Amino acid sequence: MVEGVATQFGALVWGMGDGYNPAMSIRAAIIGPTGYTGFWLIDLLLRHPAAEVSYLASHRDELPNIAEIFPALRGRCELSCRPIDPDVMVKEADVVFTCLPHKAAMAYVPAMLDVDLRVVDLSADYRLTDAELYEEVYQTPHTDRANLEHAVYGLPELYRERIEGADLVANPGCYPTAAALALSPLLQRSLIKPENIVINAASGVTGAGKSPKPHLHYPEVNEAYSAYACGTHRHQPEIEQTLSDQKGSGVSVLFVPHLLPVDRGILETIYVNPQDDDVTEDDLYEAFDDAYGDEAFVRVQSELPNIKHVRDTNFCDLAVRMVETGAGRKVVVFAAEDNMIKGASGQAIQNMNLMFDQGGTAGLL
Amino acid sequence: MVEGVATQFGALVWGMGDGYNPAMSIRAAIIGPTGYTGFWLIDLLLRHPAAEVSYLASHRDELPNIAEIFPALRGRCELSCRPIDPDVMVKEADVVFTCLPHKAAMAYVPAMLDVDLRVVDLSADYRLTDAELYEEVYQTPHTDRANLEHAVYGLPELYRERIEGADLVANPGCYPTAAALALSPLLQRSLIKPENIVINAASGVTGAGKSPKPHLHYPEVNEAYSAYACGTHRHQPEIEQTLSDQKGSGVSVLFVPHLLPVDRGILETIYVNPQDDDVTEDDLYEAFDDAYGDEAFVRVQSELPNIKHVRDTNFCDLAVRMVETGAGRKVVVFAAEDNMIKGASGQAIQNMNLMFDQGGTAGLL
Amino acid sequence: MVEGVATQFGALVWGMGDGYNPAMSIRAAIIGPTGYTGFWLIDLLLRHPAAEVSYLASHRDELPNIAEIFPALRGRCELSCRPIDPDVMVKEADVVFTCLPHKAAMAYVPAMLDVDLRVVDLSADYRLTDAELYEEVYQTPHTDRANLEHAVYGLPELYRERIEGADLVANPGCYPTAAALALSPLLQRSLIKPENIVINAASGVTGAGKSPKPHLHYPEVNEAYSAYACGTHRHQPEIEQTLSDQKGSGVSVLFVPHLLPVDRGILETIYVNPQDDDVTEDDLYEAFDDAYGDEAFVRVQSELPNIKHVRDTNFCDLAVRMVETGAGRKVVVFAAEDNMIKGASGQAIQNMNLMFDQGGTAGLL
Amino acid sequence: MVEGVATQFGALVWGMGDGYNPAMSIRAAIIGPTGYTGFWLIDLLLRHPAAEVSYLASHRDELPNIAEIFPALRGRCELSCRPIDPDVMVKEADVVFTCLPHKAAMAYVPAMLDVDLRVVDLSADYRLTDAELYEEVYQTPHTDRANLEHAVYGLPELYRERIEGADLVANPGCYPTAAALALSPLLQRSLIKPENIVINAASGVTGAGKSPKPHLHYPEVNEAYSAYACGTHRHQPEIEQTLSDQKGSGVSVLFVPHLLPVDRGILETIYVNPQDDDVTEDDLYEAFDDAYGDEAFVRVQSELPNIKHVRDTNFCDLAVRMVETGAGRKVVVFAAEDNMIKGASGQAIQNMNLMFDQGGTAGLL
Repeated sequence: MVEGVATQFGALVWGMGDGYNPAMSIRAAIIGPTGYTGFWLIDLLLRHPAAEVSYLASHRDELPNIAEIFPALRGRCELSCRPIDPDVMVKEADVVFTCLPHKAAMAYVPAMLDVDLRVVDLSADYRLTDAELYEEVYQTPHTDRANLEHAVYGLPELYRERIEGADLVANPGCYPTAAALALSPLLQRSLIKPENIVINAASGVTGAGKSPKPHLHYPEVNEAYSAYACGTHRHQPEIEQTLSDQKGSGVSVLFVPHLLPVDRGILETIYVNPQDDDVTEDDLYEAFDDAYGDEAFVRVQSELPNIKHVRDTNFCDLAVRMVETGAGRKVVVFAAEDNMIKGASGQAIQNMNLMFDQGGTAGLL
Repeated sequence: MVEGVATQFGALVWGMGDGYNPAMSIRAAIIGPTGYTGFWLIDLLLRHPAAEVSYLASHRDELPNIAEIFPALRGRCELSCRPIDPDVMVKEADVVFTCLPHKAAMAYVPAMLDVDLRVVDLSADYRLTDAELYEEVYQTPHTDRANLEHAVYGLPELYRERIEGADLVANPGCYPTAAALALSPLLQRSLIKPENIVINAASGVTGAGKSPKPHLHYPEVNEAYSAYACGTHRHQPEIEQTLSDQKGSGVSVLFVPHLLPVDRGILETIYVNPQDDDVTEDDLYEAFDDAYGDEAFVRVQSELPNIKHVRDTNFCDLAVRMVETGAGRKVVVFAAEDNMIKGASGQAIQNMNLMFDQGGTAGLL
Repeated sequence: MVEGVATQFGALVWGMGDGYNPAMSIRAAIIGPTGYTGFWLIDLLLRHPAAEVSYLASHRDELPNIAEIFPALRGRCELSCRPIDPDVMVKEADVVFTCLPHKAAMAYVPAMLDVDLRVVDLSADYRLTDAELYEEVYQTPHTDRANLEHAVYGLPELYRERIEGADLVANPGCYPTAAALALSPLLQRSLIKPENIVINAASGVTGAGKSPKPHLHYPEVNEAYSAYACGTHRHQPEIEQTLSDQKGSGVSVLFVPHLLPVDRGILETIYVNPQDDDVTEDDLYEAFDDAYGDEAFVRVQSELPNIKHVRDTNFCDLAVRMVETGAGRKVVVFAAEDNMIKGASGQAIQNMNLMFDQGGTAGLL
Repeated sequence: MVEGVATQFGALVWGMGDGYNPAMSIRAAIIGPTGYTGFWLIDLLLRHPAAEVSYLASHRDELPNIAEIFPALRGRCELSCRPIDPDVMVKEADVVFTCLPHKAAMAYVPAMLDVDLRVVDLSADYRLTDAELYEEVYQTPHTDRANLEHAVYGLPELYRERIEGADLVANPGCYPTAAALALSPLLQRSLIKPENIVINAASGVTGAGKSPKPHLHYPEVNEAYSAYACGTHRHQPEIEQTLSDQKGSGVSVLFVPHLLPVDRGILETIYVNPQDDDVTEDDLYEAFDDAYGDEAFVRVQSELPNIKHVRDTNFCDLAVRMVETGAGRKVVVFAAEDNMIKGASGQAIQNMNLMFDQGGTAGLL
């Protein structure tokens, strides 16, 4: 057995993530913890070596114990929800995660920032930097343009430095996370064309939330599969915004999501055109290796990704193929992630780690 | 064939399909009935008002009762398998369905044709009209070029007349059926471009057959989803052959299949470019209505197809969208079918109906 | 009813069920066709050689086309729902299936009987012969005691003759059907004790209906399994009523249902005590053979039943084991059925067949 | 943010389990890591704050990297398997987990013990204390009776103290774990009768291992459900052994397992008779509270357990009902666990924690 002293502790907990400070515990509040993203945030915080759930806040009249909502949490976390009170929350928390529907989030975020709580917002309210575009896409006025201006898009592999200093992080959508990781290195290095990008995506049902709906009733989803929102999904402009920012000029995509009969997981199969005849599959892999060689949560691989291999992890798995067709070559990029982890709560924790200088991987490996 | 007297019975059995001759019963033999396509052939023949299962033929040494192989058939069909003996089979059957792997099928088909049995072959052996292409794709010599020359590709909606007179029908692959139905009317009418066609497909697991394999083990497939054979699937040249034939000139596609965690169903999401700026979504629907207005098994619809709505039916559901993207317009075609029915055994029965002048829908609605 | 001339057609359609009169078509109305039992009734009637769907009746204000409710029916049945009007219905139908919740059913049944329509009621309203017991179990007054008195419990294998002459058939519950078929022959022949009977049951989710509910939301059911209503389920008294009637004296059971993550299927694993030390497993199988040897839809078998083998069929599969334990011998009876078919709509069709002298199996094999 | 010093560290890592010594890291070897229990052991050890995977040992000729076997482990654990060499292993490991089939395990365990490695054996080889019974049940000679004599049955809630001092722990079977936790407190306190115990169990498919088999092929399991090994399962004598030991006299059970179409999870629904008329449901709950009030991994609850609520946890959830039937009262006990965690690898880690004085819950909450 390896005996050690406290100063050697870091190495011993290596398996749980690098570089965190064991003498610190980030106290995390969650507003709206009763949905699926709330559940996975709590689950991850409970496993986190340097963070804890300190405050669960709800706007419900009857404030439930979280273990009543999620029986899986009994014996692990049995906090009762409390009112959304910034003055109390700031005393008990260092960071607040807002797990609210769009529109509701921006109603609470300003008050959190006002008391100097740092915020990771899992809604869509601060993702689109252009307020007019937001209003068009979400069909509601943007009521917090002041904070929108300095919100940081929380995709650590692309915007790590800005996240570290941010007070307000807009946690990316599940679909946009996979798309941005899959395409950014190829666009930045001018290996693929910025137009005619087709993103064929499929997601597990938790992505649609916890509220029962006729089309999400078990016998309607089980043994079923179909597309929805073809070219009209709200994540399409978010994807285009990130890719255009990464490319430095306009990028447009066609995004077609499908509903998979599984709980969790997103696979995106992306069809793009190589920039020119010289681009090889090796070039594409080199771009990935170059971009993600030091990233703990992006796995560049030769095998085609499977949502099962990323389940319950913060990984995004990437592969790429250059295919000859009768009418020229086509690039196919594959990206898999767990929509609840890298696509939502895991990425939120990753952002928190960066904001509090805990190393990106603490609690996530 | 049992000849009989015509009656006015037809109207009463309308629900089971139109125009069949109730005074006739097609006697059907099946070679290789112990796989999934064999099961569904038997199931459909048992429900068929003018056909019956008369002979189950196997090359196994131990000849099983089919109800031992498929307990679901107990009380419905308890025939024992018998040897593959053309001389006996021709006395007891009018048609033979060959449900064998490629290569094995063409070893038996000539003997069946020699005794004047009509054949519907569910393997790939007679689908590709170019023997060289077959040999390249399936990596085996084609041993029956004589019959290959007059085999008819059994996609009734496209080749009905030729099927009616055929002695040997090559039943199409599951993926190619959906692709051909989805694209042929649009290519024929020059509404879409014949290149840069991307077929993103997803299939249930029965499409991979009944033999257990590590990657088809329940815990590996359940809650999983991934692509396979990107651009290298054997159905890609079959798709291109049919589309080129329909278009009258070369059509090339990129075909990317995925494995869905469901028993049955194929959904193809197909990305193509409109032929020119004048083409509208209405034009595309008109082409579908024009092509399939009289077809019982192609449902043209505005809603996006779902594999659940075609399960256990011979339908192929089609929808189409013209989508504006930042870089021009894109056509997305959706096609859903049951890979076991319209994609295999149902289409084989549909072909049989045509070959024996029973009306296309008998036993299939 | 369409009367016609008898033909020799029967032999040709043997596969679809024996002994029906092809020169007759039973016209069937359905009240409340928009739930799952309505769907399967329509599906079965469309396949039935001597029956047809003639009238779909709904109490909704907006009367939908049934194919809008069930896209799977497009191209097969596109009738619009009409008001529940007995005077019109009696002109267009011979039989009416009531697919309504309990309480609602008995509000409509009297009017149907009054115009001489024969009724198969799929609700619970006429199953319990004791009105007081009904009122206790369903917590609502019984408002049609007059008809309750002559309603016949529609389990054909046990009450065939009474069904044939009935005007009002109470179609059994899904769980009670399997339990009654599994235990009646053993109780009647005094092979098992009438007390200490434990019925451990598991059902697919369609048994809980089509309305979305939080606990039936896909991510809550998928990969889940639990018991519910332990000893308090409304089917327990229905089971006891039938078994007591079959035994000729009081039989009590403990019934514990579970929710299975599948669409369809019920498996009951039933633990009983042999009547005495002389009873053997062979005796139990003989009792089954004796009771069901002539029954088309009960398959007595040595293998343990699987819900997959009865899916989409009207079969109930039975097996039994005599097991030695350290504390004596125990009988375990296994019964599997499709809760939507033998447990609901298929049995309703079987009852209709008997009521209209069509042979029990028409349209069901 | 809570700033702290090293001495306050315990509180900070509370979420990951109590009382472990952060200045220690248990080095764990795994023999046979390529099956499902191996995977979950690795996963849990990677999350464990005071343990690490140090050696993966395989008897294969080609020694794979574990991440090739389990792509999910890429980026987390990429160790190559090495030969099973006790002399090397003892230098690099403190404990060895044997994840081998029965018979194979006892071929390796003696050599491990000889070099003073402590062993947690996940096979069945050391579970039955009676070698003759083992030989009868597993149909193979027991080749290591010497070690069998001092092996400790690794169910921490029942045998904690013996586990702490053990060199060889026989990790319990998945089904026996739930059964023993559900019934021991009630038998010990003479609240239920020790005969006529019926255990109706259902397990996810991972319980059947990673090798593909015809009956575990995806389309055979999906949407299926059936019993198997009725009264003949090898876990039945293991259950009886533990219950008899806990009761202090002979206990016999009837054990009937079923295969659930899910990846993971066991639910046991157990039917027993109360010891006498005085026993109440409250008494039963008191017995549970008394036995498990201090146990972190047994959750006594009023709601009926669901396998989904214990998924990926080391919990066993228990509930009990006293039900009045027409023939007396019956006790129904419900127990849910994850067959891969509390039923296998999680319990193995729990045993390791106790053997190395790390507190029972380290790495498991």
